[in-house]
Amino acid sequence: MPETSPATARATEALQRLVVDVPDFPEPGIVFKDISPLLADHDGFVAVIEALASHGRDGAGAPVVDKVIGMEARGFILAAPVALSLRCGFVPVRKAGKLPRETHAVSYALEYGEATLELHRDAIEPGERVLLVDDVLATGGTVRATAELVERCGGVPVGVAVLMELGFLDGRSLVGDLPVTSLMTV
Amino acid sequence: MPETSPATARATEALQRLVVDVPDFPEPGIVFKDISPLLADHDGFVAVIEALASHGRDGAGAPVVDKVIGMEARGFILAAPVALSLRCGFVPVRKAGKLPRETHAVSYALEYGEATLELHRDAIEPGERVLLVDDVLATGGTVRATAELVERCGGVPVGVAVLMELGFLDGRSLVGDLPVTSLMTV
Repeated sequence: MPETSPATARATEALQRLVVDVPDFPEPGIVFKDISPLLADHDGFVAVIEALASHGRDGAGAPVVDKVIGMEARGFILAAPVALSLRCGFVPVRKAGKLPRETHAVSYALEYGEATLELHRDAIEPGERVLLVDDVLATGGTVRATAELVERCGGVPVGVAVLMELGFLDGRSLVGDLPVTSLMTV
Repeated sequence: MPETSPATARATEALQRLVVDVPDFPEPGIVFKDISPLLADHDGFVAVIEALASHGRDGAGAPVVDKVIGMEARGFILAAPVALSLRCGFVPVRKAGKLPRETHAVSYALEYGEATLELHRDAIEPGERVLLVDDVLATGGTVRATAELVERCGGVPVGVAVLMELGFLDGRSLVGDLPVTSLMTV
């Protein structure tokens, strides 16, 4: 899928028009990218879902993934519609203690302290191809932990699709070989 | 929309087949209703989204709402596809401190302590008709707080659509006059 496909171009235009910069949130010096005006705009929301889903299709438009994973919480808003568009199941990755049955767990470093993500052990079947969807690629820690969770289930992470990539944090280097597609680089 | 519409019947069948009871989660004596197997099943997920969305349509199938609100976090998974199905915008209601711009906030009692929900002040325009979507109606506290947030923006809550209703907690009495539709009563 070329970077300049019409679906991607429409989505990028919607992102540039509708995502709002909020300075000093959640702390001084950070500029938060607020996607809520994009989600509230039906045409903009459709455009980004179509563009994200295109990364789970082959050149003829047929889905090539078995499951779509969304990362709690904003990732859920994007990954669930992408899963429906690709006619496959949706799987949540959640913060520690939220999933009720037996899980795999992976901890990873944050700027201060660490976080733990969990995935139900039976959420992905061995050999299933999995697309990871989130709103932002920052340091790559969340994506890397999620890919490891998929592999612990025996699944195959085939790509990461995000709305925005914070290029200055170089999350791609932590993500390794997994192909990353972002609709906008900040 | 009669309770026995084909869409609702398909969704209820999917819920009965795919939702898993997990005893003693998150604490002893509680039976947790795990919807993740339903979300992982494409046909089941489609069935419940169609049934939830039907409560935002008139008798001829035309959408009659301007926005769909989802409550963090599982509500996001359902409300985002419902909003897309109804060709309207999606709006998140979040726990305190997560939304970056100016919000309205409502606190409500939990069994122990209290919780606060927030909504961006510009998320709903005056007069907009809003459908609330969540996975479970329990005590009704979350729904009541969300309806109040919508009203503070000048919006009109027109209904609540949930997968499941815990009948023994009588959440409907707290919700008041707002019509509640659930696909399954436990």
